[in-house]
Amino acid sequence: MIKLSKFPFKTEKVAPKISDNKSTSLLLQAGLIRQTMAGVYTYTTLWLKILKKIEKIVREEMDKYWAFEILMPALSPKEVWDKTWRWDSIDVFFHVPATNNKEYGLNSTHEEIVTPLMKEFVQSYKDLPTCVYQIQNKFRNEKRAKSWILRWREFLMKDAYSFHASDEDFVNYYEWMKKVYMKIFERIWLLDDTVIALADGWTFTDKYSHEFQVKLSIWEDTIYICKNCGTAHNEEIIDKEKFKCINCWWINAEVVSASEIWNIFPLETKFTKAFDVKYLDENGKQQIPIMGCYGIWVSRAMWIVAEKFATDKWISWPENIAPADYYIVVLWDNLKKAEELAKKIEDNWKEVILDDRMGKKFGFGTKMKDAELLGIPHIVIISDKTIEKWWYELDGELISF
Amino acid sequence: MIKLSKFPFKTEKVAPKISDNKSTSLLLQAGLIRQTMAGVYTYTTLWLKILKKIEKIVREEMDKYWAFEILMPALSPKEVWDKTWRWDSIDVFFHVPATNNKEYGLNSTHEEIVTPLMKEFVQSYKDLPTCVYQIQNKFRNEKRAKSWILRWREFLMKDAYSFHASDEDFVNYYEWMKKVYMKIFERIWLLDDTVIALADGWTFTDKYSHEFQVKLSIWEDTIYICKNCGTAHNEEIIDKEKFKCINCWWINAEVVSASEIWNIFPLETKFTKAFDVKYLDENGKQQIPIMGCYGIWVSRAMWIVAEKFATDKWISWPENIAPADYYIVVLWDNLKKAEELAKKIEDNWKEVILDDRMGKKFGFGTKMKDAELLGIPHIVIISDKTIEKWWYELDGELISF
Repeated sequence: MIKLSKFPFKTEKVAPKISDNKSTSLLLQAGLIRQTMAGVYTYTTLWLKILKKIEKIVREEMDKYWAFEILMPALSPKEVWDKTWRWDSIDVFFHVPATNNKEYGLNSTHEEIVTPLMKEFVQSYKDLPTCVYQIQNKFRNEKRAKSWILRWREFLMKDAYSFHASDEDFVNYYEWMKKVYMKIFERIWLLDDTVIALADGWTFTDKYSHEFQVKLSIWEDTIYICKNCGTAHNEEIIDKEKFKCINCWWINAEVVSASEIWNIFPLETKFTKAFDVKYLDENGKQQIPIMGCYGIWVSRAMWIVAEKFATDKWISWPENIAPADYYIVVLWDNLKKAEELAKKIEDNWKEVILDDRMGKKFGFGTKMKDAELLGIPHIVIISDKTIEKWWYELDGELISF
Repeated sequence: MIKLSKFPFKTEKVAPKISDNKSTSLLLQAGLIRQTMAGVYTYTTLWLKILKKIEKIVREEMDKYWAFEILMPALSPKEVWDKTWRWDSIDVFFHVPATNNKEYGLNSTHEEIVTPLMKEFVQSYKDLPTCVYQIQNKFRNEKRAKSWILRWREFLMKDAYSFHASDEDFVNYYEWMKKVYMKIFERIWLLDDTVIALADGWTFTDKYSHEFQVKLSIWEDTIYICKNCGTAHNEEIIDKEKFKCINCWWINAEVVSASEIWNIFPLETKFTKAFDVKYLDENGKQQIPIMGCYGIWVSRAMWIVAEKFATDKWISWPENIAPADYYIVVLWDNLKKAEELAKKIEDNWKEVILDDRMGKKFGFGTKMKDAELLGIPHIVIISDKTIEKWWYELDGELISF
């Protein structure tokens, strides 16, 4: 239970003006986030609660399909990046000078850490397929942090890495992971607005990668959706002057702006070769495993959920990721009764924000405004009027205690 | 449920030799950890489960006393460190070169981030006292990572920061936090071996700080415990040639080796002054809040628990932080029955490792050895012998299904 009388992160009367999106100014007004520097944020208590709920959804869906959670570090030795020539080729990679004339990497991705790790555990065809994932911060030395939502310098990512004995097995897993991702999207309420777009392979692969793009008014990417077969293309892989669908060669496309949250890459044997990962197949012959990687920008996904459910005045959090389930507005001298009710709600595994702030400044209007600004799904009002009839008000209806 | 037939992190037959402590070689043998570079580790699935359980204990005890969890970033702008002159004075501080000729800090502590954050929310005496905490990685540019357990370059810390209107209020809170810490120590089984030692204030304060030192054969600190009054002193604050107790002036001390896991510092107004934090007191006069900070090295604490409960052959995890509650050894063709039992155990909110590995290599001896190496509190055996009587064996006793 959070009692607002003791809670430090107070709301502001007026939303600060942020030009390029609706949610950020509401999040600032509600005291949920603060900027530490451009592209780097501090999360206060309620924002962190939402993050943990989204993390939990991601974990549950990944764990279901035998992906095992691990935790790799943020720092890494230069030597592993030298093996794949990515120390200098990843343009946003932070190089950290250290004692003894060393330099460490501050990881923007983790292939160079996970591959030598799994080399030790993948030795036989019986060890395949296998998949590990982590929820860990990533760092990017961005030239310019863009708006409040895009191009962060530090953000939380779920990244998974799978290892396979055959191309066929990899392709099955890759297609299957798209379904896992769609399920995660569904649970965080982004499914309706998502398209899977073909995109460039970046430093990972020469093949196409797949991006999960959420259609949004704040965007970084432009997506061309084929009007014939529906295949979506990141503009980076097409000729913008003369669109031609990669799948069906149709020449008309719908153009939408979108924001990338998830991406998945076929890595083939790029990393397993670089780190000399080998397994013995059924005939006792050495083979090189095939890899895939699967990312979710957890902290960006959260912000995009906020943007999607933002009105001009509040963010209506969906029940399963809201920072609390109930907001109890306590008026006058009815705190004891309110605490009893809060306790009862908590006994049913629901979370409560108890607005027990007292004094002239905290009348009905102020408390209701904060309840709405925070966007908690259910609002309870307990006042002399409701109490005298042994009632409380829940979402506008009178209910007996 | 973790099924070992699908689990990548296999145990090794022989423990690798690590010279300076018992636990590390067992953790490596059990596949729980791997070194990414000196002082920087990767946690595999089961180690991460232990970490999450310890985190949960820390959270529960902190939340009870109205400390609010937040999450500050790992990166910070140089400007905030310039205000306290600590950019150069913290010798282990990583400076990260960034685009546009900037440098960021890779935080080894968070006073310079939390103080400007709370400046905005601490405005009146009514906002005090208040306390926020986070569980976040810290980074230290150590010259030499010492053993496997000490002087890490990246580790997880719980750090809390409290703000007060008076010295008296601060002192009460500080003493009270010692009790919260002792409660946490109790729940992670380190209470018996802990002393609270007076120590140097480092770059934080001219007063003494307090360290929670666990007596241990692998250590970094030497503690002098007064034989008269029991006051513990870190050797850094005494004259080692001529010990004199700071409390009672006695001259005889017991000397013990110990490892620091927790420390708490009175920060007085050092940081609130630097960031010009002010609040209005009851008379409408501007005052400067007093701060305290309270750290727990979560990842070190976890390792020290491992060391404490390590025998030569396994680590006996206490029930509340073990990576699983039950380890089911399945022999011969009894997997279905074992899965039913595992399901039943999980329905009671307990966690299961199901050793369903089949084939010649995975006989009774191999499975029992792994069960013991992993140190899971309860071992269940299901074999033809037990099944024919509708029994299974739990911790050596036969129990009917």
